[in-house]
Amino acid sequence: MSERVLYLVGAGLADVRDLTVRALRTLARADLVLVDTYTSVYELRERELRRLLRALGHDPPEIRPCSREELEERFFEVVGEAERVAVLSPGDPMVATTHATLAVEAARRGWSVRIVPGVSILTAGPGRAGLELYRFGRTATIPLRVRSVYPYDVLERNRDADLHTLFLLEAASEREYVSVADAVRYLLELEREEGRGVVSPDDEVIGVLRLGFEDELVVRGTVHEMSGCWDPGPPQALIYPARLRGPEREFLELLVPHVRDARRRGE
Amino acid sequence: MSERVLYLVGAGLADVRDLTVRALRTLARADLVLVDTYTSVYELRERELRRLLRALGHDPPEIRPCSREELEERFFEVVGEAERVAVLSPGDPMVATTHATLAVEAARRGWSVRIVPGVSILTAGPGRAGLELYRFGRTATIPLRVRSVYPYDVLERNRDADLHTLFLLEAASEREYVSVADAVRYLLELEREEGRGVVSPDDEVIGVLRLGFEDELVVRGTVHEMSGCWDPGPPQALIYPARLRGPEREFLELLVPHVRDARRRGE
Repeated sequence: MSERVLYLVGAGLADVRDLTVRALRTLARADLVLVDTYTSVYELRERELRRLLRALGHDPPEIRPCSREELEERFFEVVGEAERVAVLSPGDPMVATTHATLAVEAARRGWSVRIVPGVSILTAGPGRAGLELYRFGRTATIPLRVRSVYPYDVLERNRDADLHTLFLLEAASEREYVSVADAVRYLLELEREEGRGVVSPDDEVIGVLRLGFEDELVVRGTVHEMSGCWDPGPPQALIYPARLRGPEREFLELLVPHVRDARRRGE
Repeated sequence: MSERVLYLVGAGLADVRDLTVRALRTLARADLVLVDTYTSVYELRERELRRLLRALGHDPPEIRPCSREELEERFFEVVGEAERVAVLSPGDPMVATTHATLAVEAARRGWSVRIVPGVSILTAGPGRAGLELYRFGRTATIPLRVRSVYPYDVLERNRDADLHTLFLLEAASEREYVSVADAVRYLLELEREEGRGVVSPDDEVIGVLRLGFEDELVVRGTVHEMSGCWDPGPPQALIYPARLRGPEREFLELLVPHVRDARRRGE
């Protein structure tokens, strides 16, 4: 039997246009493509993907959506006899821990593993706001449903070291997600409970909403103002900057609209 | 006169295959594409780019290499009357501060600015090593020629907080660059001078060499072992991990070869 290969392929931010040529060629080479539909919300529809592969002269492979349970518990059953299996996930495939675990499991069974990186919100979000990537400290996720002091702790540490903080906001589905407005309220509540002087309603923050989608919105405003930010749906992220340096300040003022103007547009 | 637009386009890791469909369509729409050849070393050759644009049904625009001096000092002279100008740079376009400054300058002159993100070593490097992106602290660059205690300071802070550290290694050209072997020697020298117990020859590190290129090499080994790492040329990066968690340890052992085996291959 010939060698079996698992390709972990990053789909990028929003839709098929965010795939790299390398990712497309990898998908074309696979016998089976499983589209991971749960680690983020995105619009990579199978039909569009088939069309793009055909436009590039490739015969599309079998493409199937794949649930969390299938990916985490029944993967080697689901793939059947397929020899070259690609798992396509939003952003960069290695941002979700699930995929590292899957890679380990496949390697243990003697499969080869190939990673095809994708554009991630971790760099595209800060870049879109004109903030220096070298000035970011640790990233944290603001979770749905669970109350956790962890994001507040991360923010405190980063602010103490004069570093920017990127918050990823959990999205379980198109309807269940943390919005930028939810996120600032979450942080304000933690401030009321913890009282360590980390979050003030007057701090300036940046909302990164649906980056890469047609209705992308990147806006600045105070924590207080952002609590009224328009909500176009997931995915969203929040950046809590450290003290801004000259070019960062200029970029923000010239190239990132104020949330109050953007709200008017959304209403 | 119609609106002028500056597109800052990320080219991804290594060559034209790392362009996204969105980046390719943006380039096709430009009147002039300037290829930034100095913020990193990569192999995006104009001829290959033209071929790919034609394959996708686009008429290639004018494509020209662009020096640092042209980009930083004579940009608005160099572009002449072109209305839609794309600057194509390796990785993500916003990782280099130059591009944020250029965006500000263009906005001041009334141009629109659009950012098309690219795959960056900042996420692809850690992902290729199976390390959790949430566990990374601040990133630092190890410079050529200059001796700076800054990378050592960043490492100390990250290690104190049990966070991984990614070091980008400066590359001025195909011949002048910092290799993984240089980088570990640089850190060991700083340890001898500073003596704060941050770097030990026995610490395990990961070398990320020419990620995305045909001769890509990702290897693990101690600081001491890595000082003898094979050198295939730039770009290179070094990861100094914090204490590894279960799945990170397994990934590394199963999917990242030891530097001593890879050295044999290179010799």
